Amino acid sequence: MSSAVSPLAPTDVPEMPAVAGVKLATAAAGIRYKGRTDVLLAVMDKGTAVAGVFTRSKCPSAPVEWCRTQLGGSKSSKGKSSTGGSGRALVVNSGNANAFTGKSGRQATALTAAIAAKALGCRPAEIFLASTGVIGEPLDATKFDGVLGTLAEQAAPGEWMNAAKAIMTTDTFPKVATATVKLGKARVTINGMAKGAGMIAPDMATMLAFVFTDAPISAGALQALLKSGVEDTFNAVTIDGDTSTSDTLLAFATGAAAEHGAPKISRAGDPRLKAFTKAFHAVLADLAEQVARDGEGARKLVEIIVEGATSKASARRIAMSVANSPLVKTAIAGEDANWGRVVMAVGKAGEPADRDKLSISFNGIRVASRGARDPSYDEAEVSAAMKNPKIQIKIALGLGKGRDRVLTCDLTKEYVAINGDYRS
Amino acid sequence: MSSAVSPLAPTDVPEMPAVAGVKLATAAAGIRYKGRTDVLLAVMDKGTAVAGVFTRSKCPSAPVEWCRTQLGGSKSSKGKSSTGGSGRALVVNSGNANAFTGKSGRQATALTAAIAAKALGCRPAEIFLASTGVIGEPLDATKFDGVLGTLAEQAAPGEWMNAAKAIMTTDTFPKVATATVKLGKARVTINGMAKGAGMIAPDMATMLAFVFTDAPISAGALQALLKSGVEDTFNAVTIDGDTSTSDTLLAFATGAAAEHGAPKISRAGDPRLKAFTKAFHAVLADLAEQVARDGEGARKLVEIIVEGATSKASARRIAMSVANSPLVKTAIAGEDANWGRVVMAVGKAGEPADRDKLSISFNGIRVASRGARDPSYDEAEVSAAMKNPKIQIKIALGLGKGRDRVLTCDLTKEYVAINGDYRS
Repeated sequence: MSSAVSPLAPTDVPEMPAVAGVKLATAAAGIRYKGRTDVLLAVMDKGTAVAGVFTRSKCPSAPVEWCRTQLGGSKSSKGKSSTGGSGRALVVNSGNANAFTGKSGRQATALTAAIAAKALGCRPAEIFLASTGVIGEPLDATKFDGVLGTLAEQAAPGEWMNAAKAIMTTDTFPKVATATVKLGKARVTINGMAKGAGMIAPDMATMLAFVFTDAPISAGALQALLKSGVEDTFNAVTIDGDTSTSDTLLAFATGAAAEHGAPKISRAGDPRLKAFTKAFHAVLADLAEQVARDGEGARKLVEIIVEGATSKASARRIAMSVANSPLVKTAIAGEDANWGRVVMAVGKAGEPADRDKLSISFNGIRVASRGARDPSYDEAEVSAAMKNPKIQIKIALGLGKGRDRVLTCDLTKEYVAINGDYRS
Repeated sequence: MSSAVSPLAPTDVPEMPAVAGVKLATAAAGIRYKGRTDVLLAVMDKGTAVAGVFTRSKCPSAPVEWCRTQLGGSKSSKGKSSTGGSGRALVVNSGNANAFTGKSGRQATALTAAIAAKALGCRPAEIFLASTGVIGEPLDATKFDGVLGTLAEQAAPGEWMNAAKAIMTTDTFPKVATATVKLGKARVTINGMAKGAGMIAPDMATMLAFVFTDAPISAGALQALLKSGVEDTFNAVTIDGDTSTSDTLLAFATGAAAEHGAPKISRAGDPRLKAFTKAFHAVLADLAEQVARDGEGARKLVEIIVEGATSKASARRIAMSVANSPLVKTAIAGEDANWGRVVMAVGKAGEPADRDKLSISFNGIRVASRGARDPSYDEAEVSAAMKNPKIQIKIALGLGKGRDRVLTCDLTKEYVAINGDYRS
């Protein structure tokens, strides 16, 4: 965990309300870090629906494989996506990712789930797991023995900020988001937390994110909501183009709001779910943006908008090519509106682009138009705009109606410093 | 141009012999830099065969389009590859890439070629052009007026090091390579020069490289030689995954060695060309490695070897995923054998990989074996090995016989510093 908080950290941190049916507790199990919490236990009511989206890495971590199995999906990253399931608890540890740990990694997940299941009086298959931290070191799951039993007793509804802190690694601030919305005539709550902050790329942009709601939504509907929700949120954020072996986004719906009249929802397309869906996506978008704001060493939040592409998918690939370009990202760190590098990144994306129709703006100031420098642009005005902590690069291709948006951050010397000596 | 020479610069700089039929001259035209040369003119004998390979960027520079046109290939990067042509001169400038300069960029190439053609008494279509430097600034080609005439008079056979210096931008050392080899009973010479050093990626790994020989080889045969030669040399080097709009590799064969008995070669498959082909590839490989050794801010030369992949193409994609991973590159900068990040980069490549068959070595020391940490590895021994300026990462997938090799460098704070204020 870096000592200085990112200058891009949100200034308004929301009060996190309780979510009926969810209780949280954290502890310092001494997995890797000293003097801080590193284990989170979230306990859910019986009948809680669970949905998940995971890394597409071909070398996923043991907890990712564990969750996939519980959700009824294939173990393989090539396999069909999860269908959703039910669960009673989530155990998250920071400091050790339990990734590339072979047979001992699988044993560690089984042991952790067994310890948690015993503490809660449920089946191990109802325990969901996530781990974040160093790769390749065996995780000593016996450290959870005792700890999880105590946490099960201590778990309380109001521990959201402590929970978000316990799952941090190189994050400089805890990431939470909340929304309250009507479902039928009942008010339901959606709470989320996430941790970044490097090894962030498309196909599950954050290493770990968890969303909880008391809405009575079936596992299948929740899975569909999650899958559509990540596309323009977590999957549209990249820090360094590096996809983790551990990326996990889990959603839990306790259904407790049914007690005060919320209708039971079994299809994501149910019209009564409209306001909920919007709020659910907003929570995902909020968390995803916080991940970008806490990119390792980030000093600028960068929004890349691509318009006029031949399709949305093409716009996404061009936006990602720009967002992942080290030369674009270092230029922004240097507060340099170096649109030539944007041209380079558009050109290397391999997508349809016509140099002589291309226009580029930085924070609303058009610097390049139809394949050449915009003759009207004022370098001093652009230089002043580049000092802004939020930089928007808009790229107009002039070919079609495809549009997309991606968030990233700049590439600074601090990124190199953080990652050059993280393990030691 | 950075002031400190890369610690990875070759210690043995070859004496560059003359190449019969090639004369060189350089000048300071004041295009951007002060107090250094920035224009190279290479004059070739009549009948010189020319071959070229260019960036696959969808937004190529004006000189790239110019060269493609002269070589009979399509203007479009989608189009068929060049067939080769003939030429009398090469004009290279540093400081301005003449890329994304619209109509004025095309006018600048036409004017430069006209000035050079007039100075040499040939057709503009026999002039080849390359530009490197900042993108998007108009290139004032009138600066070449007068300069090229003087250079045409001064051109001399022994100016190889000065030529290599004139084309540098952020390079910290000039890059040259040479080979002398028998063709038939005659000795022929192959000289090459290149410049890097950022915006280097597969599909033309250096921005500019030029190879000259006195061997009498037809344009078609030279083009075929060049195309096969780049695959495991320039196309197997990456600095930052960023592909330039200007990447250009041109080969010139003057044929002057025919005078002392070298046979005329019209097919790349001609058995008499065997030794030449090997030497030609060696010159390309030497230049490509020098580009990696002079990657911006580089302190380590990194060789990624992937074995046991399902195919060579799959091995290449996995090696490139590792070579372009900021997390792997920063770990190497920190002298940390962080093989967990190598696992991550293998996993994100999207190629067949089985975590439980994967083994990884750093400089010959196996740190991970069959999906887990190698129990026998000694951290102190690995730490000592990581201090070496050359790091070899060997990845054994255990799936098939596909093998490939890619060169890159580490990612340091200096890379960020160089690219954060390059334009200002």
